[in-house]
Amino acid sequence: MKLLGLFLLFIPLTGFTEISYPHGYRQWTHVKSMQIKPGHTLYAAFGGIHHIYANKQALAGLRRGKYAKGATLVMDLLEAREDASVMAEGSRRMVAVMHKDPEKYKATGGWGFEAFKADSRKERLVGRDAAAACFQCHATQQKTDYVFSTFRP
Amino acid sequence: MKLLGLFLLFIPLTGFTEISYPHGYRQWTHVKSMQIKPGHTLYAAFGGIHHIYANKQALAGLRRGKYAKGATLVMDLLEAREDASVMAEGSRRMVAVMHKDPEKYKATGGWGFEAFKADSRKERLVGRDAAAACFQCHATQQKTDYVFSTFRP
Repeated sequence: MKLLGLFLLFIPLTGFTEISYPHGYRQWTHVKSMQIKPGHTLYAAFGGIHHIYANKQALAGLRRGKYAKGATLVMDLLEAREDASVMAEGSRRMVAVMHKDPEKYKATGGWGFEAFKADSRKERLVGRDAAAACFQCHATQQKTDYVFSTFRP
Repeated sequence: MKLLGLFLLFIPLTGFTEISYPHGYRQWTHVKSMQIKPGHTLYAAFGGIHHIYANKQALAGLRRGKYAKGATLVMDLLEAREDASVMAEGSRRMVAVMHKDPEKYKATGGWGFEAFKADSRKERLVGRDAAAACFQCHATQQKTDYVFSTFRP
């Protein structure tokens, strides 16, 4: 009981709650895709082809421009296997997640951010660095509740 | 009644049943994507970025390698808006459909094929030409029930 008490105290003190791996996102709605190619300033971090997926709350949010608690967007980043005439999907580089919970993630626009390495589903690439690693860029999108993507009907 | 009788007679005589526009496919499962670039032999027909979507029966089929009646796959073909460092989605070129109904489409592997121009949802690009326009290529994929795509988990 003492340990549980310490644990419950820990969350508000640190203001940090881990984001879960977004199980089932491959059946969520595909929002859009984009390829980031060599030469782009984000190539080292996000080079390859990425697909954006939205759960039901996030799809409603994309239509409203404002997201309710529980809204979750995934960026599924794959290597781009490219030759002169075709660009195809290669291995997975990461599964990046943004999850809306206004109370838990006040410092980063109400969104928690995480990314899971390749197909690991476990190895976290962001952890406590969301403000610098993710929100620094997303902060520019305040008008759309910090989301870059728009839904292609 | 006479007209209806003539109409009902018409279908078995011609062996041709139109494929419906796949309403709701944007919420189906996204299977995979690929870009066909200038220089590819299929560029004139299918140049751009395409996304493949599967309804529930087709998703089950992708996993089994064999498709039940009702399985429907969509190829959503968009222009590729490309510069040196980014490839993004442009306007829609076509929504192509393959729909499994073994009795209706015996001549083309049990699949009916159609494509709808751009965002029209109505303007048909294939009609009665499925054998030459679609199945000629798909026929090479007999081992996977005439489907080219594999599901990226």
